[in-house]
Amino acid sequence: MSSKVVTVEWRDGAVRLIDQTLLPTAEVYLDCRDVETLAEAIEVLRVRGAPAIGVAAAYGVALAARVSTATDLAGLRADLAAAVARLARTRPTAVNLFWALQLQTSLSDAWPGSPNGLRAALLARAEQIREDDLAAGAALAQHGATLIPAEARILTHCNAGALATSGGYGTALAVIRGAAEQGKVAMVYADETRPLLQGARLTAWELATDGLPVTLLCDNMAGFLMQRGGIDCVVVGADRITANGDVANKIGTYSVAVLARHHGLPLYVAAPVSTLDLSLASGAEIPIEERRPEEVTSFAGVPTAPAGIAVYNPAFDVTPHDLVTAIVTELGVVRPPYRENLARLQSV
Amino acid sequence: MSSKVVTVEWRDGAVRLIDQTLLPTAEVYLDCRDVETLAEAIEVLRVRGAPAIGVAAAYGVALAARVSTATDLAGLRADLAAAVARLARTRPTAVNLFWALQLQTSLSDAWPGSPNGLRAALLARAEQIREDDLAAGAALAQHGATLIPAEARILTHCNAGALATSGGYGTALAVIRGAAEQGKVAMVYADETRPLLQGARLTAWELATDGLPVTLLCDNMAGFLMQRGGIDCVVVGADRITANGDVANKIGTYSVAVLARHHGLPLYVAAPVSTLDLSLASGAEIPIEERRPEEVTSFAGVPTAPAGIAVYNPAFDVTPHDLVTAIVTELGVVRPPYRENLARLQSV
Repeated sequence: MSSKVVTVEWRDGAVRLIDQTLLPTAEVYLDCRDVETLAEAIEVLRVRGAPAIGVAAAYGVALAARVSTATDLAGLRADLAAAVARLARTRPTAVNLFWALQLQTSLSDAWPGSPNGLRAALLARAEQIREDDLAAGAALAQHGATLIPAEARILTHCNAGALATSGGYGTALAVIRGAAEQGKVAMVYADETRPLLQGARLTAWELATDGLPVTLLCDNMAGFLMQRGGIDCVVVGADRITANGDVANKIGTYSVAVLARHHGLPLYVAAPVSTLDLSLASGAEIPIEERRPEEVTSFAGVPTAPAGIAVYNPAFDVTPHDLVTAIVTELGVVRPPYRENLARLQSV
Repeated sequence: MSSKVVTVEWRDGAVRLIDQTLLPTAEVYLDCRDVETLAEAIEVLRVRGAPAIGVAAAYGVALAARVSTATDLAGLRADLAAAVARLARTRPTAVNLFWALQLQTSLSDAWPGSPNGLRAALLARAEQIREDDLAAGAALAQHGATLIPAEARILTHCNAGALATSGGYGTALAVIRGAAEQGKVAMVYADETRPLLQGARLTAWELATDGLPVTLLCDNMAGFLMQRGGIDCVVVGADRITANGDVANKIGTYSVAVLARHHGLPLYVAAPVSTLDLSLASGAEIPIEERRPEEVTSFAGVPTAPAGIAVYNPAFDVTPHDLVTAIVTELGVVRPPYRENLARLQSV
């Protein structure tokens, strides 16, 4: 039950994205033909979701190589370095971005052949990253489905679906799709996910489009629904997972995790291994992006708060590992102790 | 540091309300000259907040008496009964509504004099309820301030301010105003409070207007702020408090209460005794209003979710008494065990 959504792909010499800022009202595709257009698209969340950002960034380096007029390797590498620096400035929290840029940079640094050969290799690497991402989603669905009980009423937060990856299964929604393939999903509750409403605009749209049962609720309603016995488990994605199993994810995930614990519900985090950052000991080291006050103080151009009011607007939070029941990856389900078990996973 | 906002008052033979659906963009006053206009205003939240609804309903009965053309007591009582029935259908959760309607009905039932005498008495009673409400706010400020530490960073949810009462101090914001008068408030964090954004539109406006320090955040950000050590205590209002100390309040209050407990922070509930409903043993008996899906699926006429999506939209939730550190009333601060201590309070 893979989604038909194509989130990121290479098409006719451009990086083609579905513009997620316009969903669900309009399905518009954007062809990025230069790095600045792509970088802006990442910054304003036309493409978002940690794995999707990673794939987009990998294509971005291939795009930079394509548009570079350099005729020698040194010139091409200089253009690539500028593109990598620009893309690295877009968003600080999701590690997949830096992971993808590092892969492309290493390829370029070690390249022994011609500039055009490097151009082709960077594109081939990006295509491979996209294929691996799609395959990871399918594997997450298989591994994750084993965790979901029959008749499950599942809460998810933000969008960790096909729209957060290259397309296909997604991460948290891969687990849900996998369980749905086995007939185990009674209802998916989608937190709307303020301020940018990725749950309302993206998750609800993606699941409804694919014919899965979905009910939308405001973020502040999930706790009451748990209290009334309406939720069986929580499945979310991740933007970065540190060596001890701490999880950075969309703001509000931590609150959901505390509520799940209070109600004795399992919290599952689904992410490809490219989201692991074992170089960081704990979540305290993860840079947390803070975004513009206007995301909170207005909607569709209409003010929702007094002019000039102070705003706290972190885009992510950190869920400590002791609130995480298991981490689902494409290589299998990881349980505590995470420090040992994640390290073992990445050495596979 | 009473607010200058006048939320509900009797003016020139009408119930005058500040239209809270238009704040903070516009300050518009609505003169309700018939019961239907007032009932609609309560339903669509032009006036909201448990104590303010109670005062508005008391005036509504006085208004019904004024516009009634009955010339004998029986005819007048029939008109009043119809008005009471209409007002009672507006919103089910806040008990102050039913409390005020009951007071006016009892007055009418027992009235020994002329129809015009009853008209005057109902208006006088409504004016008294309003004065008591304003006095309760001032007393809540005094009692509540004793609970707040120096340099306090206080989280509040929804609007339990002057806009939720007749004006003046409010309930939760009375506690905060009282603490501010003693120089103890470093920052008030206002949850925006989805779906209708009473925190963003009303609390932020009311506090900023009165010169108090306020920072707006989305509901799903409060947990992370607590985790980072940014909150010292939580103060909220109430729509109904049952005999065991369970508290119905704006949806999201329960989640805040669980988060406060997880972080070892006190949760204070501020409400006048008119919000007590000792006829109910526990919060499980409180009717919880569910509101239209459109409140969640669109904003300012712009769709924010796929058309026809299922929505869970309870307007209130119930916080169990064991998560409530203390209940602040105009008669003093009540601590557990609530069953005994609330009963003692109401018998004062």
